[in-house]
Amino acid sequence: MRKAVCLLSGGLDSATSTACAVRDGFEVYALSFDYGQRHQVELHAAERVAHQLGVAGHKTIRIDLRSFGGSALTDEIDVPKGRQTGEMSHGIPITYVPARNTVFLSIALAWAEALGAADIFLGVNAVDYSGYPDCRPEYIEAFEKMANLATKAGVEGSSRFTIHTPLIRLSKADIIRLGTSMGVDYGLTHSCYDPVGGSPCGECDSCLLREAGFAEAGLKDPLAQAR
Amino acid sequence: MRKAVCLLSGGLDSATSTACAVRDGFEVYALSFDYGQRHQVELHAAERVAHQLGVAGHKTIRIDLRSFGGSALTDEIDVPKGRQTGEMSHGIPITYVPARNTVFLSIALAWAEALGAADIFLGVNAVDYSGYPDCRPEYIEAFEKMANLATKAGVEGSSRFTIHTPLIRLSKADIIRLGTSMGVDYGLTHSCYDPVGGSPCGECDSCLLREAGFAEAGLKDPLAQAR
Repeated sequence: MRKAVCLLSGGLDSATSTACAVRDGFEVYALSFDYGQRHQVELHAAERVAHQLGVAGHKTIRIDLRSFGGSALTDEIDVPKGRQTGEMSHGIPITYVPARNTVFLSIALAWAEALGAADIFLGVNAVDYSGYPDCRPEYIEAFEKMANLATKAGVEGSSRFTIHTPLIRLSKADIIRLGTSMGVDYGLTHSCYDPVGGSPCGECDSCLLREAGFAEAGLKDPLAQAR
Repeated sequence: MRKAVCLLSGGLDSATSTACAVRDGFEVYALSFDYGQRHQVELHAAERVAHQLGVAGHKTIRIDLRSFGGSALTDEIDVPKGRQTGEMSHGIPITYVPARNTVFLSIALAWAEALGAADIFLGVNAVDYSGYPDCRPEYIEAFEKMANLATKAGVEGSSRFTIHTPLIRLSKADIIRLGTSMGVDYGLTHSCYDPVGGSPCGECDSCLLREAGFAEAGLKDPLAQAR
């Protein structure tokens, strides 16, 4: 059974992407990060999702990106709210965390090489991607190329690393339909950038994208039912 | 004054590379890693070197690469000793840590972007490089390309990231001559893979390369004098 390392934040996208690796027959090693994000509720969601998907292993790695600053997700900057902010349509939002996916993929690469895995799954999306540069296909291709030059496994040819991004061309509604068809329980996931007492705020970009995605898919969000 | 992030392990090469950034007029932010290496003496050396070079800032980031396994530098695997091991001449040695430079450069990139720095210095060397894949020029070029696709600064064009590797084509003797000419105090550095009571073993690849480098440069290693 081939092994894969799957980045799992506990959000809707990474839960679906990890489920794709399970569907494709990989022995899945889920990787989460405690990176100084403001809300630890994400990490609990990752644990629940990993358990539901029956992964072979799950590690949460601590890395203090907060000490660098520069993002509303780690600093004491207000997360933008509501449909009037323009954040969803223009430029790179202030929820961007400098080089976050690069740091996460690099650590996934380290674990993959140590495990003898050649496959890494990442739930990035270039459709509803909110303008993050490190969610684009050209970035993923460049990372993959670098990874194969960086590693003993890549250089010796014992394995060629592949970064799988099964959601990259899907709309949020497509992702939700796909995950639902694979049995992902979205009631275990967490999307909100600014939860209030552990519950989604319903007003940040991430909540709005999620709400619109379920609506377009014609499905009910189990988290919305809970509210 | 332009800012640069300099990877500083506390070894001879990274001390020299960081001194190059100071020489080139950068405001230097030194970055070290507590990654589960077996010997913390490296981190003390990094602190001493950062202080001697008069850097603007120095951070040590904790990231547990030991939990992944796969290297003599983090695991309980014996570090090879002596000139008969063949480790220096053939293949990738067991002191290779999976994807280490990629993890380190990624975190340096995160800090650089948060600081508004476009320059990163790394003391890799492709001459006496002991076979590490992530010390080769083609790897560095691939990382740089990826970094400019990964980041807000790269995409918006506010800065184009450059990975400086001032030592990449130098022999160990040339590195020592260069550092000495810039006033680097090699008595503060640490090179050994397997120190005994804080002192270099004199028998691992790193000690042997250092000894040969000082001999070829016609200089005396202040650490050898201390032994």
